[in-house]
Amino acid sequence: MTDHLKFMTQAITLAEKSLAEGGGPFGAVIVQNNQIIGTGSNRVTLDNDPTAHAEMQAIRAACQTITDFQLADCTIYVNCEPCPMCLAALYWAGIKAIYFAADRNDAAGIGFADNFIYQEFAKEPAARQIAMHQIMRTEALHGFQLWEELEDKIPY
Amino acid sequence: MTDHLKFMTQAITLAEKSLAEGGGPFGAVIVQNNQIIGTGSNRVTLDNDPTAHAEMQAIRAACQTITDFQLADCTIYVNCEPCPMCLAALYWAGIKAIYFAADRNDAAGIGFADNFIYQEFAKEPAARQIAMHQIMRTEALHGFQLWEELEDKIPY
Repeated sequence: MTDHLKFMTQAITLAEKSLAEGGGPFGAVIVQNNQIIGTGSNRVTLDNDPTAHAEMQAIRAACQTITDFQLADCTIYVNCEPCPMCLAALYWAGIKAIYFAADRNDAAGIGFADNFIYQEFAKEPAARQIAMHQIMRTEALHGFQLWEELEDKIPY
Repeated sequence: MTDHLKFMTQAITLAEKSLAEGGGPFGAVIVQNNQIIGTGSNRVTLDNDPTAHAEMQAIRAACQTITDFQLADCTIYVNCEPCPMCLAALYWAGIKAIYFAADRNDAAGIGFADNFIYQEFAKEPAARQIAMHQIMRTEALHGFQLWEELEDKIPY
């Protein structure tokens, strides 16, 4: 079995363990230098946290393991294609590669909104289900100017 | 001052307080029935957590306040347009409305990748900067089948 299959098998096992324990049917494993540095499973309803997807939990755990906010040279294995929240989080983390098994349509087949949210992203903001309103832009730019002028900031 | 301006002013104040304390220049406030039930600021570099955007922190705090994984009838005020991670998280949370001030282009102007990630989402997966590979779909569908058959699950 290749390493890719080995780590994906672990992600799938985490997903099945999660649903048996009352969580959602999703699991993720993050690997650096062939070592697992973080795992996660879906705890949205268990923790009352809509952000607690498997990938997000794994990202947070891996970052704590290596004491960094970047996961350079890391790969994630997840039993389902990341939703837009998790995909963007993986971009913010600077992950190198994503391996997934089931996809957004499979997730839709068991009642999850991943595909719906991807479709919302493809629409103009005015056509989306959640209303978005822009106010006070000028006032907010003051803070951005202060950030620009900060000399000891950590860019990311 | 209308309530919208009042709550956005608080989000902007949180953003400026955050950058003064070593965090990123972003702040968010979540309101239900005209009461603030959660606030957040960007703690990515402070906490080594790439998911710790202001909106995510505010969602988690608000959900703990009301002991729910859904933020029905809630509105978020944030000093900058949500990035794809935060926008999708707001969809998962079922928020009613989003008020933002600065936008993705303003964020790009001070060095943040929000707009770049939105552009990546608009591309076919094969054309994106992070490689995505699908493996072991059939094996993963077993867990989805188990989920389908679960009788006491909490759908969301």
